[in-house]
Amino acid sequence: MQLRIPGPTPCPPEVLQAMSKQMINHRGKEFEGILNSITTGLQQVFQTKGDVLTLTTSGTGGLEAAIVNTLSPGDKVLAVSIGVFGDRFVDIAKQFGVTVKYLSFEWGKAADPQAIHNALEADPQIKAVLITHNETSTGVTNNLKEIAPIVKGLEKLLIVDAVSSLGCIDLPVDDLRCDVVVTASQKGWMVPPGLAMVSMSDEAWKAHAHASIPRYYMDFTKAKDFLVKRGGQTPWTPVVSVYYALDVALGLMLHDGLANIFNRHARLAQMMREGVKTLGLSLFADENYASNTVTAVKADKKFNAAKLVQVLRDEYDVAIAGGQGKLKGEIIRIAHLGWVTDKDIEAVLQALAKALPRSLA
Amino acid sequence: MQLRIPGPTPCPPEVLQAMSKQMINHRGKEFEGILNSITTGLQQVFQTKGDVLTLTTSGTGGLEAAIVNTLSPGDKVLAVSIGVFGDRFVDIAKQFGVTVKYLSFEWGKAADPQAIHNALEADPQIKAVLITHNETSTGVTNNLKEIAPIVKGLEKLLIVDAVSSLGCIDLPVDDLRCDVVVTASQKGWMVPPGLAMVSMSDEAWKAHAHASIPRYYMDFTKAKDFLVKRGGQTPWTPVVSVYYALDVALGLMLHDGLANIFNRHARLAQMMREGVKTLGLSLFADENYASNTVTAVKADKKFNAAKLVQVLRDEYDVAIAGGQGKLKGEIIRIAHLGWVTDKDIEAVLQALAKALPRSLA
Repeated sequence: MQLRIPGPTPCPPEVLQAMSKQMINHRGKEFEGILNSITTGLQQVFQTKGDVLTLTTSGTGGLEAAIVNTLSPGDKVLAVSIGVFGDRFVDIAKQFGVTVKYLSFEWGKAADPQAIHNALEADPQIKAVLITHNETSTGVTNNLKEIAPIVKGLEKLLIVDAVSSLGCIDLPVDDLRCDVVVTASQKGWMVPPGLAMVSMSDEAWKAHAHASIPRYYMDFTKAKDFLVKRGGQTPWTPVVSVYYALDVALGLMLHDGLANIFNRHARLAQMMREGVKTLGLSLFADENYASNTVTAVKADKKFNAAKLVQVLRDEYDVAIAGGQGKLKGEIIRIAHLGWVTDKDIEAVLQALAKALPRSLA
Repeated sequence: MQLRIPGPTPCPPEVLQAMSKQMINHRGKEFEGILNSITTGLQQVFQTKGDVLTLTTSGTGGLEAAIVNTLSPGDKVLAVSIGVFGDRFVDIAKQFGVTVKYLSFEWGKAADPQAIHNALEADPQIKAVLITHNETSTGVTNNLKEIAPIVKGLEKLLIVDAVSSLGCIDLPVDDLRCDVVVTASQKGWMVPPGLAMVSMSDEAWKAHAHASIPRYYMDFTKAKDFLVKRGGQTPWTPVVSVYYALDVALGLMLHDGLANIFNRHARLAQMMREGVKTLGLSLFADENYASNTVTAVKADKKFNAAKLVQVLRDEYDVAIAGGQGKLKGEIIRIAHLGWVTDKDIEAVLQALAKALPRSLA
């Protein structure tokens, strides 16, 4: 199976082998070594000297943790949305009593930095900005290198959903002064799902000290205490096997080097976009902001999206995703993040070429 | 390594092998089949016709989910505690604004059903009872068969922490009219950690409809919608590998049969208790309520608990646990749940006999 949905992504054999290791004491020396090794590795990939915490949840759990650990009911945030996952961040914030100023952009386009600046200037009560780095539902990457200085220049807390970008697309957390950055194991990390990873800046910790949304399982004070004071522990029993796997995967990633990883993702994404256009299809995303981890392709009236997904799956053993929310039936999405090579892109494009004539609208 | 801590517990080879399977689409047919198979298997082990939901969290996440899905801030509950995990349930409830009437019993003893009856009669405002079925910190099992009819006779919601008992000690959820029952994959299920399983009765769903503690990741409306309406899905990306493993483990368990599993746990626990006494040591738990999944042994002045744990680990490759909270240094705890045989008990007792003279107080 060519698994080309935007997570879970395929895992290399070394990583899968690590998953099958026998259980150990999660409060013993061996796990301590693994957690400390993972934490150091994550700091390198996040490009931060700050804390990176791990939580036994999926990415959505990580997004919830980011909100409940830094905000209080009634706090006002600017939520920048360019798709389904931006909207999910809004839903989570509202659910916990946060007041959301919603700033959305046309799906397929990136957020406009000037509009973010204007929205923040217009309402000094805004305390934090929620933003999706890479919007999986539309295949668009926001330009955080432009947006972060605006948000931090106005001294707002910057909370970033980087679930489908971190470890694939350059996101220098400290340089950009991102306060809270969330990712999850089943995306660029080449690891099965079950683990969210969240970085916290000093400013984020200051906000945490006053954040009053009730929390227990996801509480970062406990997570940090167990990581640092107890030394290499988690407050609750962790998803041990995924920690084994992440330790191995981080070894592979750091051996490869961040620059190589980012370049490979950029090159393969470009190859995918060119291939799709060569087939006479149109990209959904504004090409200036097209994602290097997932490519969205417009159905227009050239193919039936549901049918194409089905034919690729049933006849060519290629799993891709359809559109979500209002994009259902409008697009297909092909993921190319984590463990992916030129050959995978070629294989998907070849299957796509064959499946298209059988998936007409 | 003889891993004899009360979770994570050792996994059989078939289960570990399942952990190393490649990723699949969590919104595809194959995962749907696995989740539906697991759900049916869980219903058999829970002995319920009601819903059993799965969550990508540890057991503590499951306990939090039980509370936030059935209660509202200001609701009054009776929390019955006989140890560390009973107290944790209290902490979680308080954290989310629940008013807790705390009913604790001497550590090492079981909860007194009459005292529970009296406490409920004394305060008609109490809406629910939180109780630990098997208290891992003291090695005591509460007699739910006596307690449940009292709680349900007074029409209270019965919320049970069965993290370290379900699948090991008989807990007929429907017969006892337990409303919410929580367990976790790394205990009796012979599966790595990462998954909590929670049953919900009709009455629990009625309470859920009015429960206003804010929740998102752990929301059971979403979990049930994705399980039933969408058919075999979870709202968020699940810890796929642990689902693979649980499916295999449930196959082993149901092939063995519940009666055999309960009898085996009872027999091995008895063997452990007899063995410990033969070594001249005393059990911490009241023997009438001694747990069939974990045995706590008093240090008295016969051994140094920390030293004994260390000698067993370093010299005999046997991992056991010390005491938690106020029992630190006072007891050791040996777990015998899940994948455990007569030979394991013998091996641990032999190591204990050799380690004791080198671990004197």
